[in-house]
Amino acid sequence: MDELVIAGRSFSSRLMVGTGKFASNSLMADALAASGSQIVTVALRRVDIDRPEDDLLAHIDRDKYLLLPNTSGARDAEEAVRLARLARAAGCEPWVKLEVTPDPYYLLPDPIETLKAAEILVKEGFVVLPYINADPVLAKHLQEAGTATVMPLGAPIGTNKGVRTRDNIAIIIEQAIVPVVVDAGLGAPSHVAEAMEMGADAVLVNTALAVTPDPAGMAHAFRLGVEAGRRAFLAGLPAQQQKAEASSPLTGFLRDEQ
Amino acid sequence: MDELVIAGRSFSSRLMVGTGKFASNSLMADALAASGSQIVTVALRRVDIDRPEDDLLAHIDRDKYLLLPNTSGARDAEEAVRLARLARAAGCEPWVKLEVTPDPYYLLPDPIETLKAAEILVKEGFVVLPYINADPVLAKHLQEAGTATVMPLGAPIGTNKGVRTRDNIAIIIEQAIVPVVVDAGLGAPSHVAEAMEMGADAVLVNTALAVTPDPAGMAHAFRLGVEAGRRAFLAGLPAQQQKAEASSPLTGFLRDEQ
Amino acid sequence: MDELVIAGRSFSSRLMVGTGKFASNSLMADALAASGSQIVTVALRRVDIDRPEDDLLAHIDRDKYLLLPNTSGARDAEEAVRLARLARAAGCEPWVKLEVTPDPYYLLPDPIETLKAAEILVKEGFVVLPYINADPVLAKHLQEAGTATVMPLGAPIGTNKGVRTRDNIAIIIEQAIVPVVVDAGLGAPSHVAEAMEMGADAVLVNTALAVTPDPAGMAHAFRLGVEAGRRAFLAGLPAQQQKAEASSPLTGFLRDEQ
Amino acid sequence: MDELVIAGRSFSSRLMVGTGKFASNSLMADALAASGSQIVTVALRRVDIDRPEDDLLAHIDRDKYLLLPNTSGARDAEEAVRLARLARAAGCEPWVKLEVTPDPYYLLPDPIETLKAAEILVKEGFVVLPYINADPVLAKHLQEAGTATVMPLGAPIGTNKGVRTRDNIAIIIEQAIVPVVVDAGLGAPSHVAEAMEMGADAVLVNTALAVTPDPAGMAHAFRLGVEAGRRAFLAGLPAQQQKAEASSPLTGFLRDEQ
Repeated sequence: MDELVIAGRSFSSRLMVGTGKFASNSLMADALAASGSQIVTVALRRVDIDRPEDDLLAHIDRDKYLLLPNTSGARDAEEAVRLARLARAAGCEPWVKLEVTPDPYYLLPDPIETLKAAEILVKEGFVVLPYINADPVLAKHLQEAGTATVMPLGAPIGTNKGVRTRDNIAIIIEQAIVPVVVDAGLGAPSHVAEAMEMGADAVLVNTALAVTPDPAGMAHAFRLGVEAGRRAFLAGLPAQQQKAEASSPLTGFLRDEQ
Repeated sequence: MDELVIAGRSFSSRLMVGTGKFASNSLMADALAASGSQIVTVALRRVDIDRPEDDLLAHIDRDKYLLLPNTSGARDAEEAVRLARLARAAGCEPWVKLEVTPDPYYLLPDPIETLKAAEILVKEGFVVLPYINADPVLAKHLQEAGTATVMPLGAPIGTNKGVRTRDNIAIIIEQAIVPVVVDAGLGAPSHVAEAMEMGADAVLVNTALAVTPDPAGMAHAFRLGVEAGRRAFLAGLPAQQQKAEASSPLTGFLRDEQ
Repeated sequence: MDELVIAGRSFSSRLMVGTGKFASNSLMADALAASGSQIVTVALRRVDIDRPEDDLLAHIDRDKYLLLPNTSGARDAEEAVRLARLARAAGCEPWVKLEVTPDPYYLLPDPIETLKAAEILVKEGFVVLPYINADPVLAKHLQEAGTATVMPLGAPIGTNKGVRTRDNIAIIIEQAIVPVVVDAGLGAPSHVAEAMEMGADAVLVNTALAVTPDPAGMAHAFRLGVEAGRRAFLAGLPAQQQKAEASSPLTGFLRDEQ
Repeated sequence: MDELVIAGRSFSSRLMVGTGKFASNSLMADALAASGSQIVTVALRRVDIDRPEDDLLAHIDRDKYLLLPNTSGARDAEEAVRLARLARAAGCEPWVKLEVTPDPYYLLPDPIETLKAAEILVKEGFVVLPYINADPVLAKHLQEAGTATVMPLGAPIGTNKGVRTRDNIAIIIEQAIVPVVVDAGLGAPSHVAEAMEMGADAVLVNTALAVTPDPAGMAHAFRLGVEAGRRAFLAGLPAQQQKAEASSPLTGFLRDEQ
């Protein structure tokens, strides 16, 4: 079995899904089901914790999906750590998608504060999945600090540009000792397929599923894209060639007969 | 049902497969099966016609696959027309993938001779699927001449570079009145997914399946890539954005509490 | 001297400039001067021919620039040939930039009609510079027909997308026996530099100079871009590398001392 | 005058040059002259400091070029700080190109240690120019710490791949309060032109000049590329368009006459 293993836990799906921006929780639930995902990220908000009857959570079957709280909105390590602790106190498992994004405009992650928060949270027993720029040296620092994955961005979140950080992602994958999850910017099945073909262990998608008229249809498409890329990676993709090569062996007979 | 219709004939698969370069006919047959393809191209060679016991043909179930003879090796219209006629005389259905490639090095198609051959073959009752450079004006001429599809190349054959002719392919798709099949240069599931996401009606793949250690595994991967791209096209892909957009609604509570 | 030779005539500049779309003829004249260009294309219109006092022509010093009439607006070979003859009859030199663009929307060239017109015009003694899609086989046909250059497009005209047809342009350059002039779609000095670095013999630019607030400043920028790319091509560019290589030899002393 | 100002010092050239890898110091000196550069980086090595007669330094005219010592080879903040202090102690001006690259293979910069070293060096009165991954949040931290520039990489050093980090570089430029110098990976004049067209304030090049057969010719080419890109940025580049737009106003007369 080709399973994804994170912190000792096995998953057959390599597609993680975020829950923001859907037009309704019902559409979101349909998309989750169609995606085949087993890991679902949710933004930590007070409402999540104080109101167990919260509509969003009611739509996520905790037996089927691992709920991965994220620290979306945290601007520094302290805020991120506080959010993670609140989630655990409220009964979530001690897994956290660590996001520290001081810039409200591009929502790019902060390498310094992310590492600082990761070091604290790992010591407190959290399984930490940090969202980072595609920076191979930072990825190494985080792995040395004990994070369970690294989650480099393909392109700024919500841009749907695909794997624009290809060169650095390739280096991160080459050097990784934990699963590499490409996160953010993946806006089409061809994007997730490309990430998986490069050898990424998983991907996370949200915007592209949430903003389409047909979230479940799109989620199914991304699921197939992830599987396509993974299978191609395992089968062994050919390298690019500069020169053309005939698919059909050249036939000599036309000239032979003349 | 989302079917591909060519010359009045319906296909549920949108992945065509070529039969060149496989290490063995048995590996080829496995790849065909795994691809889910219903249209299989074969280079016309004397041996195909004179020897019905030919090993290659014996591995292609004619009830399952439409055998699409191609004119691979033809250097001009006359040679291509001759090959097509030979195939029909030998009992093939009157479908032909028209390839006219005077340059043995890059195997790029000849626009002038391809159009000339297409005009002749259409008049003789052939269903003509011409392989062309991604040239929107040539594509129009061919459609006006009555071809059943146009098959613009993504990149030079055998290069595995993907949809490098993206701008022109997009124009061809926009203006097409027959199915557009992206052919040549597609070397990964992400490439075929991208072509389908753009609105191509089908793709043709050969080299990438034939040269991998695991042709059946790779064929399955391409099948999923085609389906992923097609489903995403139907669901409605979001546009690329210049600015980031948060997937998770920004939480205010951390600051509110302070 | 590194000169561009077309049909036996030498030019020190490798930047050709078009004259459409400028806000005024005066701005156009300034741009021509700043570009250093020696070949200037002008659309053939009746007014050009009947009124020698035409304002546009009055702004182009015929001693300084070779006036290259183009057949802009021609939809087929017949119209293009007629336009070329009119220009010669009106006293232009028998040089013609051959453009046959049946589609008024994307203005992409027609391979069939362009070759037809080229064959006629070459026989009538014209120096023919055909505008074409980046199609290597068509480029060969035209050269065999006796054209003085081939002018493949980098991207659809007016799009400013740069050398999007890079793979095919490289093949055209490799196989060319006449100068290759990359035309259309070049919207920045980096684009023309790239074309020249690939080994193109010259480029043609129009839109990017005409639509800027500072046409002369932009023309100067493009002139430098062309020279930069040409010089780099002559000096010998290094290949892309997959692995990093230190610019500064690694110093050992810090560790040595410890 | 369009001058580059760093830490209150004005430069007319926007091309910085590194001195590694040249086949000889004489070829290097010729390249420096041809580049028009005014800022030259040199790896700090003991030999530089202990032997003023060092051949490399003898080839760099200190009246003409600002010698910018770099901390190449430093694996952490401590080593980098030590190198910078040694350079100042040996009589260099207190400018330093800060490089902290723990990974000897890809030589990618360490965000954590680079920020730490920058904070120390700024406090000690150094003018600090840090080499960084194209990380907008890190760039902000460094500027807040008082660095004189930020120097994001275009691609891993020595790869000649160009501005592969385009999306993040654009954000860094948009948010910068100090000059942005694109460093590393720029392997052709078209690459430096592109960086300047995007609004970068300067670029740094080394490998592409050093490994060519004609370093002076290539240095001249890069100089022109930088000027081309800068002039185009100032003149105002047009945006990319999806639809073609005719350069030559369409002529109606052919049809009018019919």
